[in-house]
Amino acid sequence: MTKKWNIGFVGTGVMGSSIIKHFLNAGHTVNVYTRTKEKALPLVELGAKWFQTSGEVASQSNIIFTMVGYPQDVEEVYFEENGVFKNGHVGLIVVDMTTSQPILAKKIAEHAKTVQMEALDAPVSGGDIGAQNGTLSIMVGGELEIFEKVSPLFNLIGKNIVYQGSAGAGQHTKMCNQIAIATNMIGVCEAIAYGKKAGLDINNVLSSITFGAAGSWSLSNLAPRIVKEDLDPGFYVKHFIKDMKIALQEAELMQLELPGLELAKKMYDEIATNGYANNGTQALINYYQ
Amino acid sequence: MTKKWNIGFVGTGVMGSSIIKHFLNAGHTVNVYTRTKEKALPLVELGAKWFQTSGEVASQSNIIFTMVGYPQDVEEVYFEENGVFKNGHVGLIVVDMTTSQPILAKKIAEHAKTVQMEALDAPVSGGDIGAQNGTLSIMVGGELEIFEKVSPLFNLIGKNIVYQGSAGAGQHTKMCNQIAIATNMIGVCEAIAYGKKAGLDINNVLSSITFGAAGSWSLSNLAPRIVKEDLDPGFYVKHFIKDMKIALQEAELMQLELPGLELAKKMYDEIATNGYANNGTQALINYYQ
Repeated sequence: MTKKWNIGFVGTGVMGSSIIKHFLNAGHTVNVYTRTKEKALPLVELGAKWFQTSGEVASQSNIIFTMVGYPQDVEEVYFEENGVFKNGHVGLIVVDMTTSQPILAKKIAEHAKTVQMEALDAPVSGGDIGAQNGTLSIMVGGELEIFEKVSPLFNLIGKNIVYQGSAGAGQHTKMCNQIAIATNMIGVCEAIAYGKKAGLDINNVLSSITFGAAGSWSLSNLAPRIVKEDLDPGFYVKHFIKDMKIALQEAELMQLELPGLELAKKMYDEIATNGYANNGTQALINYYQ
Repeated sequence: MTKKWNIGFVGTGVMGSSIIKHFLNAGHTVNVYTRTKEKALPLVELGAKWFQTSGEVASQSNIIFTMVGYPQDVEEVYFEENGVFKNGHVGLIVVDMTTSQPILAKKIAEHAKTVQMEALDAPVSGGDIGAQNGTLSIMVGGELEIFEKVSPLFNLIGKNIVYQGSAGAGQHTKMCNQIAIATNMIGVCEAIAYGKKAGLDINNVLSSITFGAAGSWSLSNLAPRIVKEDLDPGFYVKHFIKDMKIALQEAELMQLELPGLELAKKMYDEIATNGYANNGTQALINYYQ
């Protein structure tokens, strides 16, 4: 018989809610906490149990997943008085799926050891669609043995699940992902800006360039939305800026200069200042208009 | 019966030679000239006819394709004393497949009109493999009527053939292609540089990031070569710099700022200066080492 887990989950946003449904559907118990209780109510109707704090969730669970907003939110969930570490028990496995700082992932893993808990960092990519369909990419850092123990749960929500190494390696891999996206978005937007200015029909241009050496996920998926002037998220500009900031901080710690990422961050900061923080990342096209 | 053309071809490099073979295989006559005669000899053995100048080729053909190196080479082939315009006849169709300046494409088209010839600009992408397999992307500018007349020949060598508009539109579209590639290459290299510095196994990182939102042709095809330290071309750094220079010149004429492309050009100039001009574009990784 497959082991049934007593799962804790902190953060029931769009992504978290979809993930929790997969856990519930597989017959696991899910204990939830989130800052805005209303967001969790649909999950409670599906059988999730509501608790008043992250700490209470931790005390009731064998494993706790967290998926919140910013590194400071992660810090609070784990280290505050009502948080995971003060209220969890020996043997608890903690898995942070927030895209957050590699240095914070290491700090969590080190602290977990001192209180006889186990930690993984496991950020994801694939967005709301990937979470809904259970096809997320999951990039995992931490002890290999714990990764293997948790794998049956990862398999319920992802399909490209890769163990990347010791604590922080999952977050570092997610940074690689965001770095590759960042300057590619500049290229996609500059190609469109140039084509428009040259008087070309951008749909014809995309027909020529999408399937060759210039091709990319962003060109296939976001360029057509730019043509339709559809700037809805997708992935929020403000969250992308958070990720680029983390990557640049870590790069600085490693004494690595990333001029492309620096430029992308500067350009996104500018469009955020100009009112596009809550649009999708394709809003970068407005830098050129 | 399919019309048999008397085709001229100037420039029998790697790409040109493959294209000429497709024309010969389809039963067309092909008249060739290239600066270094030795390069054309294998084609002469296959049935191509050798001439001493571009002008002689033009005088013997109903249509002439040119695929040479730099815009100044294109300028010479068309405008010099022994060139196409001085020696071609009324009704000749000229098709420049070199990746070259949109303004030069317009100049050629305008001059063609004054001597009762017809012109298309038709740069390609897809590289030597695309040329060999007859699967090039062809981006065409010029009169629609002439494009339709030449289409049976394009169909012999390409599979993604898009009419982009009036003279220069093909070249402008190729610039969009190169612009999209340029900053994406920065992203690919920065993701790898960051991952290495963070101590990750880059093959594992590529497993995580290649098939999601960070995915691109360059990440799928060039990142694995970077991991293997294989810097062979592919596409030469020196030729990519030529293309970026053209795109930046045209952008300046249109009063469009492209900070990503400017950065890419600057970085590629630097690695060219450091000895990588004859490597493939993936040599950009050395900017970070």
